[in-house]
Amino acid sequence: MMKRFLVALAVIAGSAGFAGSVQAQQKPEDVIKYRKAVMTVQSWNMRPLALMVKGQQPYDAALFAWYAGVIQSTSFMLPDAFAPGSDKGDTRARPEIWKDAGKFKETMDRFNADTLKLVAAARAGNLEAVKGPFGAVAKNCGGCHKQFRAD
Amino acid sequence: MMKRFLVALAVIAGSAGFAGSVQAQQKPEDVIKYRKAVMTVQSWNMRPLALMVKGQQPYDAALFAWYAGVIQSTSFMLPDAFAPGSDKGDTRARPEIWKDAGKFKETMDRFNADTLKLVAAARAGNLEAVKGPFGAVAKNCGGCHKQFRAD
Repeated sequence: MMKRFLVALAVIAGSAGFAGSVQAQQKPEDVIKYRKAVMTVQSWNMRPLALMVKGQQPYDAALFAWYAGVIQSTSFMLPDAFAPGSDKGDTRARPEIWKDAGKFKETMDRFNADTLKLVAAARAGNLEAVKGPFGAVAKNCGGCHKQFRAD
Repeated sequence: MMKRFLVALAVIAGSAGFAGSVQAQQKPEDVIKYRKAVMTVQSWNMRPLALMVKGQQPYDAALFAWYAGVIQSTSFMLPDAFAPGSDKGDTRARPEIWKDAGKFKETMDRFNADTLKLVAAARAGNLEAVKGPFGAVAKNCGGCHKQFRAD
């Protein structure tokens, strides 16, 4: 199982990086649908991490690491989820996402970096070690919503 | 970038494996929402791969590898997406998913294995090498829908 994962990640890592969306032909409504799906996936996988950190669910080192890994993988979905042209329609995404694309990219990159730190911390297998990195990841979620999502 | 990914994947790989969902407390409607989101994410990321394989979009080795990696990562979302108890509600998921859980797990595991082969093939960086593995992954999608999704 480990070898598989390592091959998979090495391939992603050796390729495109955060180069922005390449699915420019997609209709805005399809991008918006994708964006909402990615947010749903992120929310789902953040939940057990939050419950464990808050002590509302017993800390399980393996499960924590599992969900942290899934969260990390979702960071690679974000560039497509915010493809240019998807600012119109049934969306709360603010125009600043595209008007200030450099800043938004920084925000996505920070999330990517912080999820990686969470994954690395999760390896230690103890609750105290993951609390800080989890807080940092969660802060990304809230911070980005506050700045780039309409109320 | 590569080191990050490798750490992330090593952590997932060293942890839970396909142990089934651990989010048993989730409401059926939330599981169904998550399931649909995962399907949307998979469909989105299969699309550019299909277009390149069919020659409807120029083959770009790096992008192909990128999307193949994202598809691989979605395979780890499937156990939660089909959590027991989510057979009722606004869903086309067939009861056989849970009645014949062993067979369904085999289906998920095969998808996981085939996406990994696709990722590995994508490293070669040529279109001919990825056509077969892409076809195998796509066959999983259609096969699972045919068997486990109501019309």
